[in-house]
Amino acid sequence: MIPVRSNIRDLNGYTPGEQFNDPDIIKLNTNENPYPPSPRVFEAVQAALTGDKLRKYPQPLADDFRRVAGQVLKVDPSCILVGNGSDDILTILTRAFVPEGGLMVSPTPSYLLYRTLAGIQGARFECVPYTADWQLDLNQWPRHANLCFVANPNSPSGTLVEPAVIRHLSSLTEPSPLVVDEAYVEFSDAVSLIHRIGEWPNLIVTRTFSKAYSLAGMRLGYAVARPEVIRELVKVKDSYNCDVLSLAAATAAIEDQHYFTQVRAKILATRERMLPALTALGFVVTPSQANFVWCRRSDRAVLPIYEELKRRKILVRYMNYDGYDGLRISVGTDAEIDRLITELRAIL
Amino acid sequence: MIPVRSNIRDLNGYTPGEQFNDPDIIKLNTNENPYPPSPRVFEAVQAALTGDKLRKYPQPLADDFRRVAGQVLKVDPSCILVGNGSDDILTILTRAFVPEGGLMVSPTPSYLLYRTLAGIQGARFECVPYTADWQLDLNQWPRHANLCFVANPNSPSGTLVEPAVIRHLSSLTEPSPLVVDEAYVEFSDAVSLIHRIGEWPNLIVTRTFSKAYSLAGMRLGYAVARPEVIRELVKVKDSYNCDVLSLAAATAAIEDQHYFTQVRAKILATRERMLPALTALGFVVTPSQANFVWCRRSDRAVLPIYEELKRRKILVRYMNYDGYDGLRISVGTDAEIDRLITELRAIL
Repeated sequence: MIPVRSNIRDLNGYTPGEQFNDPDIIKLNTNENPYPPSPRVFEAVQAALTGDKLRKYPQPLADDFRRVAGQVLKVDPSCILVGNGSDDILTILTRAFVPEGGLMVSPTPSYLLYRTLAGIQGARFECVPYTADWQLDLNQWPRHANLCFVANPNSPSGTLVEPAVIRHLSSLTEPSPLVVDEAYVEFSDAVSLIHRIGEWPNLIVTRTFSKAYSLAGMRLGYAVARPEVIRELVKVKDSYNCDVLSLAAATAAIEDQHYFTQVRAKILATRERMLPALTALGFVVTPSQANFVWCRRSDRAVLPIYEELKRRKILVRYMNYDGYDGLRISVGTDAEIDRLITELRAIL
Repeated sequence: MIPVRSNIRDLNGYTPGEQFNDPDIIKLNTNENPYPPSPRVFEAVQAALTGDKLRKYPQPLADDFRRVAGQVLKVDPSCILVGNGSDDILTILTRAFVPEGGLMVSPTPSYLLYRTLAGIQGARFECVPYTADWQLDLNQWPRHANLCFVANPNSPSGTLVEPAVIRHLSSLTEPSPLVVDEAYVEFSDAVSLIHRIGEWPNLIVTRTFSKAYSLAGMRLGYAVARPEVIRELVKVKDSYNCDVLSLAAATAAIEDQHYFTQVRAKILATRERMLPALTALGFVVTPSQANFVWCRRSDRAVLPIYEELKRRKILVRYMNYDGYDGLRISVGTDAEIDRLITELRAIL
C-alpha cells in the first residue's frame, strides 16, 4: 500500500449526513432549506448556460459575485473570499494558519468537521465544553491556538453566543485568528459579525448559500475578513474553486433579498411550531436560532426513535458526542413537520 | 496582522492564466477547448436544474457519475475519486501523502502548480530538468520523495513520455505514489494509463473535463487509483466537493463519446496546421501531443510578441522558467488560428 501520512491513515474521516435519492423520503437531517431557491436563480443559471461560459475558466476571484455580494452585505469586495461551499473556506483557513503539530480549538458539542480538519492537517485539536446553558466559559479556552472556530449559531444546539462574548474571545486569542462560522446566522435574531472586521483585527466570518439561500447542491460559501487576510487566503485556495453556474446562482440568490425574507419568515414560523409540539411529545428541545432544533430525552434512548423514523421514511440526524446524544431535526415545510409529528406520536 | 504560516506568507501564489470577460478577445492562453460542450451537457444541466436538486446536498462520492464514468473508462467505480477540477485532486493528493517538510518532485519545465502545492503544504520541492528532447533522465530522479508528479503530455511542451519510462519511474519511486497528470491525454496518440493501476501499485492517474470535454467553467476532474488508495483520499476531500450541475454536466459529457471524437478530430487537424505555419514565421515549435503548441525563438525575444498580440486582442501564454521562455499557444478554431497567423505576420 502507498504510504499515506499517518494522520490521514488514523483518521476515521468526517461522515457527512446521509444523502438519499429516494424522492419519497422526508429529509430533515442536513439542514437543507425545504424551499427552492429564488426564481431569479434559475433565470441566472439559464442565462449563464452557454457554450462559451462552460468551456472557459471562471473568474478566479469571482469578481462579479464579490461586487454584488459586497453591495448587498455592505462590505468592500476585497474583504470577500469565495469558496466551494463554506467547508472549502474552513479548509483554506486551516491550511493558511495551522502548521503540522499546531493547535486548533472549538467549543463542543459543535460542528464535527473542525476536528476532522485538524486531523487532516496533522494538527492537535482541543475543545472547550459549552456550559449547561450553551454559553462559552472563556476561562477554559486554551492559549496559543493557531486557529479557533466558533459556530454561531451553534450546531447541534441552535444556540447563539452574544457579540460581547465573541469580542472577548477574539481579544483572548489575538493575534491568532478567530473564525466565526455563521452558516445559520440568517435564521437568528443576531446581526452578522461581518461588519466587525474593522474593529476586531483577528476576526474572520464564514457564510454559506447552502442553508438560507437553498443552494446546498451548488456549493458556494464565502469568508469576510480584512483585505490583507484575504490576500493570504487567496494563495491557498484552488485557482478556480467556484464554477461559473454556482457563481451565477449565488449572485442571483443574494440579490433577491425579497425572496430570502419570505423564505426566512416561513422557516421561522414552522420552527416556532416545532418547539411546543416536540416538547409535548416528551423531548427536551433547546430553543433554536437556526433552521433546526436539538431534541434530547431523559426517559428513553433516542437512537431507536431515529431508526424508526427512518423506517417510516423520515430522516433526522442522530448525533452522539461521546455519549451526549440527541436528534437534530431540520425545519422542513409545515406539511413535512406535520408528518413528522404524526409519526412521532405513533412511535412514542 | 494575523500570523499566517511562514510558508504561506513567503509564497507568491500560483498565477492562473489571465481570464478576461471581453467577448472580442481570442483566448489562446489557458488551453480551453474552442468548441462548446456536447449538446447533451446542456440537456443534462437543464434536467438537473430543479429546486429540489439545487436545495439538497449532492452525492458526496458522486455515485451516479462514477457509475457512468466507470462504464465508459472500463474501470471499477471504486477506483474513481471526483474532484472540483483536477487541481482539487492534486491538492487532495498533496495533503494525503506529503507531511510538512516532506519532498515533492516533478520534471521541469512543467505545470507550475506542483511547486505551489508544495509551498502551501510546507514541503520541499525538487525538479528534474527534461532532456533537450523532452525525455526523463531517471538517473537524476531524487529518491525518497513523498509524492511525484509527471504531466503526460507535459505542459508547456506538449510532449509525451513513453509508458515504459513511466513504468520504470514508478518502480524507482515505489512505494511512494507516482501521479501521472493526464489533463491533455485525450489529444495525444497515447493510451491513458488508467488501466495500469492493477500492475503498477503506486500509480495514480488524474484526468479533467476542462480540456477535451469543454467544461473548464464547470470544474470537474477525477483520479483513478486502486480502491484502497481512493478510500484514503476520500478522507481528505471536502464532503461535497462537486456540485450537482457540474456532476450532471460531466456525466453527460463523458457519455457522449461520439461528440468528443468529432471535437478531438477538429482540434488535431487545426494543430497540424499550426506547426508549419508557426515554423514558417520563425518559431521553433515543439511537435505537440496536446491542445497547445510550445513556441520559442532564437532570433528575438518572445515577450514583446505576446504583448503585441494582446494589444491586438489575441491572448497567448507567455511562460518563463528561470530564463527559459516561450509562448504556449492553445489550439483554437481554424478561424482563430487564421487570425493569429495573420496578426503574427503583421507583427514579425
